[in-house]
Amino acid sequence: MKIGVVYYPEHWDRSMWEQDARLMKETGVRVVRVAEFAWSRLEPQEGVFQFDWLDEAIDLFHRYGLEVVIGTPTMTPPVWLTTNYPDVLPIDGQGHPQQAGVRGHRCYNSPSMRSRTTAIVEKLAARYGNHPAVIGWQTDNEFMLNLCHCEACTSKFRDRVKEQFNGDLDALNRAWGTVVWSGEYSDWSQVRTPIGGSPYQNPSLLLEFRRFQNDSIIAFQQIQVDIVRRLCPNHFITHNTWTAPIPLDNPRLYAPLDFASFDYYPNTSPDKIATNPYSGALLLDRVRGFKRRNYWIMEQLSGPPGAWMPMWRAPYPGFIRAFSWQSFARGADAVVHFRWRSGTVGAEQFWHGLIDHSNVPGRRFAEFAQLTEEVNRVASLLEGTSVRSEAAILYSHEHHSAFQLQPQSEGFDYYENLKPIHRALVKQGIGVDVIDWRESLDSYKLVVAPALYLLDEATAESLKQYAAGGGTLVLSARTGVKNEHNICWMQPLPGPLAEAAGVVVTEYDPVGHDAQQLVAADGAVYKCAQWCDLLEPSTAEVLARYGEGTGFYTGTPAVTSNRYGKGTVVYVGTVPEEAYWSDLLGSLAADCGVERWANLSEGVQVTLRGSDDGRKVWFVLNLTREPKQLQLPMAMRSLLDGRDGIGGVELEPYGVALLQRGQE
Amino acid sequence: MKIGVVYYPEHWDRSMWEQDARLMKETGVRVVRVAEFAWSRLEPQEGVFQFDWLDEAIDLFHRYGLEVVIGTPTMTPPVWLTTNYPDVLPIDGQGHPQQAGVRGHRCYNSPSMRSRTTAIVEKLAARYGNHPAVIGWQTDNEFMLNLCHCEACTSKFRDRVKEQFNGDLDALNRAWGTVVWSGEYSDWSQVRTPIGGSPYQNPSLLLEFRRFQNDSIIAFQQIQVDIVRRLCPNHFITHNTWTAPIPLDNPRLYAPLDFASFDYYPNTSPDKIATNPYSGALLLDRVRGFKRRNYWIMEQLSGPPGAWMPMWRAPYPGFIRAFSWQSFARGADAVVHFRWRSGTVGAEQFWHGLIDHSNVPGRRFAEFAQLTEEVNRVASLLEGTSVRSEAAILYSHEHHSAFQLQPQSEGFDYYENLKPIHRALVKQGIGVDVIDWRESLDSYKLVVAPALYLLDEATAESLKQYAAGGGTLVLSARTGVKNEHNICWMQPLPGPLAEAAGVVVTEYDPVGHDAQQLVAADGAVYKCAQWCDLLEPSTAEVLARYGEGTGFYTGTPAVTSNRYGKGTVVYVGTVPEEAYWSDLLGSLAADCGVERWANLSEGVQVTLRGSDDGRKVWFVLNLTREPKQLQLPMAMRSLLDGRDGIGGVELEPYGVALLQRGQE
Amino acid sequence: MKIGVVYYPEHWDRSMWEQDARLMKETGVRVVRVAEFAWSRLEPQEGVFQFDWLDEAIDLFHRYGLEVVIGTPTMTPPVWLTTNYPDVLPIDGQGHPQQAGVRGHRCYNSPSMRSRTTAIVEKLAARYGNHPAVIGWQTDNEFMLNLCHCEACTSKFRDRVKEQFNGDLDALNRAWGTVVWSGEYSDWSQVRTPIGGSPYQNPSLLLEFRRFQNDSIIAFQQIQVDIVRRLCPNHFITHNTWTAPIPLDNPRLYAPLDFASFDYYPNTSPDKIATNPYSGALLLDRVRGFKRRNYWIMEQLSGPPGAWMPMWRAPYPGFIRAFSWQSFARGADAVVHFRWRSGTVGAEQFWHGLIDHSNVPGRRFAEFAQLTEEVNRVASLLEGTSVRSEAAILYSHEHHSAFQLQPQSEGFDYYENLKPIHRALVKQGIGVDVIDWRESLDSYKLVVAPALYLLDEATAESLKQYAAGGGTLVLSARTGVKNEHNICWMQPLPGPLAEAAGVVVTEYDPVGHDAQQLVAADGAVYKCAQWCDLLEPSTAEVLARYGEGTGFYTGTPAVTSNRYGKGTVVYVGTVPEEAYWSDLLGSLAADCGVERWANLSEGVQVTLRGSDDGRKVWFVLNLTREPKQLQLPMAMRSLLDGRDGIGGVELEPYGVALLQRGQE
Repeated sequence: MKIGVVYYPEHWDRSMWEQDARLMKETGVRVVRVAEFAWSRLEPQEGVFQFDWLDEAIDLFHRYGLEVVIGTPTMTPPVWLTTNYPDVLPIDGQGHPQQAGVRGHRCYNSPSMRSRTTAIVEKLAARYGNHPAVIGWQTDNEFMLNLCHCEACTSKFRDRVKEQFNGDLDALNRAWGTVVWSGEYSDWSQVRTPIGGSPYQNPSLLLEFRRFQNDSIIAFQQIQVDIVRRLCPNHFITHNTWTAPIPLDNPRLYAPLDFASFDYYPNTSPDKIATNPYSGALLLDRVRGFKRRNYWIMEQLSGPPGAWMPMWRAPYPGFIRAFSWQSFARGADAVVHFRWRSGTVGAEQFWHGLIDHSNVPGRRFAEFAQLTEEVNRVASLLEGTSVRSEAAILYSHEHHSAFQLQPQSEGFDYYENLKPIHRALVKQGIGVDVIDWRESLDSYKLVVAPALYLLDEATAESLKQYAAGGGTLVLSARTGVKNEHNICWMQPLPGPLAEAAGVVVTEYDPVGHDAQQLVAADGAVYKCAQWCDLLEPSTAEVLARYGEGTGFYTGTPAVTSNRYGKGTVVYVGTVPEEAYWSDLLGSLAADCGVERWANLSEGVQVTLRGSDDGRKVWFVLNLTREPKQLQLPMAMRSLLDGRDGIGGVELEPYGVALLQRGQE
Repeated sequence: MKIGVVYYPEHWDRSMWEQDARLMKETGVRVVRVAEFAWSRLEPQEGVFQFDWLDEAIDLFHRYGLEVVIGTPTMTPPVWLTTNYPDVLPIDGQGHPQQAGVRGHRCYNSPSMRSRTTAIVEKLAARYGNHPAVIGWQTDNEFMLNLCHCEACTSKFRDRVKEQFNGDLDALNRAWGTVVWSGEYSDWSQVRTPIGGSPYQNPSLLLEFRRFQNDSIIAFQQIQVDIVRRLCPNHFITHNTWTAPIPLDNPRLYAPLDFASFDYYPNTSPDKIATNPYSGALLLDRVRGFKRRNYWIMEQLSGPPGAWMPMWRAPYPGFIRAFSWQSFARGADAVVHFRWRSGTVGAEQFWHGLIDHSNVPGRRFAEFAQLTEEVNRVASLLEGTSVRSEAAILYSHEHHSAFQLQPQSEGFDYYENLKPIHRALVKQGIGVDVIDWRESLDSYKLVVAPALYLLDEATAESLKQYAAGGGTLVLSARTGVKNEHNICWMQPLPGPLAEAAGVVVTEYDPVGHDAQQLVAADGAVYKCAQWCDLLEPSTAEVLARYGEGTGFYTGTPAVTSNRYGKGTVVYVGTVPEEAYWSDLLGSLAADCGVERWANLSEGVQVTLRGSDDGRKVWFVLNLTREPKQLQLPMAMRSLLDGRDGIGGVELEPYGVALLQRGQE
Repeated sequence: MKIGVVYYPEHWDRSMWEQDARLMKETGVRVVRVAEFAWSRLEPQEGVFQFDWLDEAIDLFHRYGLEVVIGTPTMTPPVWLTTNYPDVLPIDGQGHPQQAGVRGHRCYNSPSMRSRTTAIVEKLAARYGNHPAVIGWQTDNEFMLNLCHCEACTSKFRDRVKEQFNGDLDALNRAWGTVVWSGEYSDWSQVRTPIGGSPYQNPSLLLEFRRFQNDSIIAFQQIQVDIVRRLCPNHFITHNTWTAPIPLDNPRLYAPLDFASFDYYPNTSPDKIATNPYSGALLLDRVRGFKRRNYWIMEQLSGPPGAWMPMWRAPYPGFIRAFSWQSFARGADAVVHFRWRSGTVGAEQFWHGLIDHSNVPGRRFAEFAQLTEEVNRVASLLEGTSVRSEAAILYSHEHHSAFQLQPQSEGFDYYENLKPIHRALVKQGIGVDVIDWRESLDSYKLVVAPALYLLDEATAESLKQYAAGGGTLVLSARTGVKNEHNICWMQPLPGPLAEAAGVVVTEYDPVGHDAQQLVAADGAVYKCAQWCDLLEPSTAEVLARYGEGTGFYTGTPAVTSNRYGKGTVVYVGTVPEEAYWSDLLGSLAADCGVERWANLSEGVQVTLRGSDDGRKVWFVLNLTREPKQLQLPMAMRSLLDGRDGIGGVELEPYGVALLQRGQE
């Protein structure tokens, strides 16, 4: 466990480098990320490379005992590159190039971009593959989906589809239902990306295009991965993804990498923070799920963000430290702060770093120094620990993409609907992984699989096996609607899972924002919205029915539970409020023996990191502006303040405690 | 009177066709619409036609006694057509082609589009002109105004204007006032469509461009009409227009057709339905007015619509049946339901049909079956009946277009302002036609002519004659402002009708949303908004004056009534709330002997269909979710439940009753 | 002091001209503006000039004793010009030409535009340079910033930057911080305008591009100024700017002109008028500050504006007269009303003039006639008077531009934040100039300099000298942040003014809309928002501290005051509500002996015009719909009603009084 910072030597006068390195060292910083936007400085003209400045910076960091992570600079093609090779620029649906300006102005499929990427990454990797300070690499920076329609994309997309259907155009026309509105292709040359700029096109084409552009990122990254693996065999490779949800196929993006990294900017504004300590927890649990292992934070909030948008609030005292601890608590091995000092130039002038423009370290830097000292103090105790969970939520970027293309009802939002489910678990102190929907589930007692919209038969089969083998599987509305080509199944919902759920949907009401009631078997009344399936159980028992509302189905089953093999399949035919998820999942967790933590106060989060050799450390965070208390189930030892045998924890605003069992 | 369905044989495996046809037959369906999007299946490559599948489908329907309406597939040019002939694609004001994707991606003036349209329609008409199952044709589908600027449009527009002004460029410059802001043309080559994408251009040019594009639709349709008339002399021809207001010149679009058709999708959401049973009634009355005769519903809502937008609510029990009866009640001869079964593929996957994706008929289908049985039971009684009205509202797409180009004040909306006038009549059970503003008015006792903004002298003259001959004519603010070139008259408002109204507008206040009071002669106080004319009567008497408000004209006349010849001209110088229209029009209706129905409950609509041989059937609809009652003025017979001699009707939610006089 | 009207002879039949001129004369009008959109009439084809009609019109005005101002017609290039020379059209960031349509469709740098501008202006100036009726010229009309990217702009921009940095590309790269995100130029050919349409680019480039386009306007205007100065040596030259804020560098635009002019359209809607009599006052004070001398109103509201947007409300009785008097009260020498009669044709049909389309003079014209009579009556008394102020607010279009590029926090708006400061002064009857931030300040006792964001050292020095010399200087948050290249200073805020203010900002909180309290030394509590600097005084005393709020800095200094030399520097580290500004500035004004007017009622404004020979006239305006009273400090004489020795003024709604001291 260690703390790092992002540093841009190229932004500062060389006379400042050493004093910065010295202060890093004194503050306990152990890692520095460099170079990820510096292409124009590394290769000022095509084929002319200049590494002396970076040599000097890395050597300096080495002298101060700092480890270095190098970012490949391919998110920011230099001006000469886009000027000399206009095919680098992505082309939008109306044929306009995305000009340079911000960043990310490159088509992942551009031949020129790929060739110059190869050149710069080879040079970098060759130069620093054996440098004693360098420990690893970040590919590019915050990949984003490019809905590019350039010639390279057009022809690659066509080739991909042709291969997918073995050159059988009729098969393509059938699989995508192009017959609707006379969209049938009569020649392969007609198959192309969905130009025109309209979001209203064949949904099978639109979904496949998104898959293609996801794969374009992965292929582009693989060029870099191959080079770095070859030239830097002892270095790790990662990539820094950013705020969710973005329709990136992250599990596949990270497959060839060593671990995932995340850029974590929790909102600093109290008015916008309602779900924040929990939505942040969801992000971290999701990032941990990309590879089902520990991750890095490659950029952690250090001051008010701001650029061309209004700046955010100044972080409240304790905020920076507490959210850095949250990163560790949910599985970070390193937390790299963005950035050492606020930039005085360029577009991100107001994306504040640890130190302000004035170069006078202030309140935020002092808090950072405290954090660094604490982390370094407990690092060895936490070596080799990781988060282990008995519950999981299944996430699918495919569903997210498909729902974006066809919103189901007003307010229906796949990602937002995950949040109350996740919160319901986190607030009960239940450790939960958020993993890809096709992962193996054997290690979990309780799995929530919301809205499995695009459901192929193989995945349905493996979910059934999980339940049959004794698992508890919770499904929800909009499951089993379509196949992988975004085509509706012609069978009663939930389609391939109807038998396992012991229920069919006879009709549905896309209620949107209209209020409906959900009445549990014990008479408790909850709110639900967005969607109401009208259920007809075959073998399932009814857990809740619709109450009063604007619909016509009071008394109709809304939630059912079915014994299936040795396990249970619950079907939630609507989008309930968090309170219902809390009661339902709490009850299921109790039934299947998932460990919980009693009555956590709002905003207090408890997680456990354990090691194979039996070490266990609980992280207790107060992510609010009020003091909080936590009763402990046994006498414990508090690592940060050294108190032992305590029966409870008093947490100041944004307070943090690390606990071990008394005997450990 | 009959029930039909929309069916897409090309979307379904042939193995399903016969079971579908059999179920239609069993359910009482009599008409099937086919083929209107099937161009790529009918002509898979240029000049290669494939009718065998459609032959088979139509033959099948014939075997089951079903009549067939064929839609020409010209709204959806196939991919080969737009690929081979890019001139098919409309060009927007900034020069971008409207790419294929959704539908409607064709310029009505494109030479290639017209030539391939001729080919496919000729082939279709030749093949099915004598098929015993086929009864008629639908041209294209839901024509929309294309504000296209392609070369063909540019040159046709120039030729049109040149012809209009007999080649006299000075006359054009004068008529359009191009001198403003140096817009004068010095050569005919400079005259073109208003490119640039800015809505802020010469209003005379903008209005003429809209007229031109309206006429482009009509000319494009005429190509098809000429072919079908020649090859299918025994078939009807219609077109299906859709939700109002759209700035189409419908009376002229329908002039060469046999009857109008409408695609009717009343909103299923209770929260969005406030004006719905009345705004739907307005639409139907308007469609009946296109040709002043009975119409078809070519698409009637059958389930929750949805596509790329969020789905609507599930129709409440009774909703589908009740609104189908509303269609008949206001003049439909046939109601064709869209669609038989929800599509599993393509952009309209979630535009639900009578049967769900699962192909299991459910609640909605059962309701449809009930409707079909009822309609078939009473059809012969209603043979030859039509709606006959003593009151009319004048509508003008020209005014609608002109007001869109130049909104008069905040909130001023020509079409929305028709609604309270129409509601005020419908809620009193007054039959009302909504007809083109230039139609003959001889058959009406009461005519409301709101906001006759672009008023030529000939139309003014015929309105004066109507009033002089004994009619009651109600005018409103923004009448007589401009001539047909969108140029202001240089005379006091209401311009050419000032003498007939016996009043002039000395000043006006575009009050927008600011509240004003309207005080009737009896002291009753109403709200008015949007616009306040300050009136100075010459021969008219004052019916209402302005009360308190944010204006400075308390006590100034706002509404006047003038005896003119044997009739009356009322001028309403503001936009009053519905209650005022209700009291004013109720009083005028009483004065001129228009038949009314006493005290209808909110949401209950009563209409009369009568025949030349004296048959009369009243349709009583409860378009709400609450039970309602209606007292009858005499003992009557209820056709659907067979009860006779009843003095009142109890209507369940969405209940429907058809009544005849006891003695009939 | 005189009244004028805008008249378009080219819009009206010649038969109407003389009756119009006669009525102008009878009504007391003294000036007519003509020709500023008439290019197509003056030069109907390239090189073919037609002045006979304008000769006739001007001769006619001369016969009626009316003076004429000619507008050059270059805002509206005729159709032949844009057709023959497409380079005239500006090109947006995505390469689309801005087509003709409205107006302003010309690139200021287009060679063709400049060459045809030279031709038309030379012809006009030569023809009317000696006409006895003509007194002056208006260049173009309401210049607007064109963010054009055409070839001419691209190459001029590159040349400008190259010259600015003496051909040293490294210096440019350093000065603009292009290293961020690899934006470094490796060749001058890469330097160009910020194409792409994205607002998210290098802030130094974006700011310089705005400066360049400002200078393009100035250079374009200079072509015209040079011609008119040469050919019409006895005429004045002005330009009519319009509603603020527009990011035009007005002080430099007006530098070569004789006086500023403004087009003044105060909002007529009571619901939208909240700050209107004060925001209008700010505009007029700003226009007076462009050249620190009297100005003209070249267009004064005469009826409800409206065009393609909804029309505004009818002006309340007295509104037109009162706001015309407001124009005079704050420094107008002439008020020209827009327009004589509402146009019947073209895009501005509903931008109403003094006379309506009907050509029947009505209520508004009668009010105008009263105004004209009054102005003519008192004109000689006011000859040579001007507004003289003891307080000033510093305004900078550079700051405005820079804040637009990088909004600091939610709700932070440089121009809107000026309003409460200005209102606080106006409501206390303190005369205030709003002048450029680099003007000499010697004549002022009190100077408020809000948010001096881009602060070069020279300007900082002159501000310090002002304070050191005895001035009272009020600074506010976001001062001293950046240098002129939009690059952050690397020193504690307020940067170059920190020493003079005796305070540094240790941290800031961009609070946006989150509420904070500001507590003055006397315990009074105010609201503040948008931004909170946390202050650490060195030599300054604390005037106010933060109270309760969503921040963590209760008790921290927020406002300080520092003795500096013989003067005082106050630093307001937040954006307080008006009440705080009122108390703070009232107290400072008292301290430094600025004259004030006691307790003005809301909406009552008092200003003073004085002459070098000691004449003084107070203008008292009631700009509300309620009657108001004003107590006078001595017996005075009321010029308009002739009453003498009065001790108070009763003002009817929109009432106006001009007062002199009893003895004068």
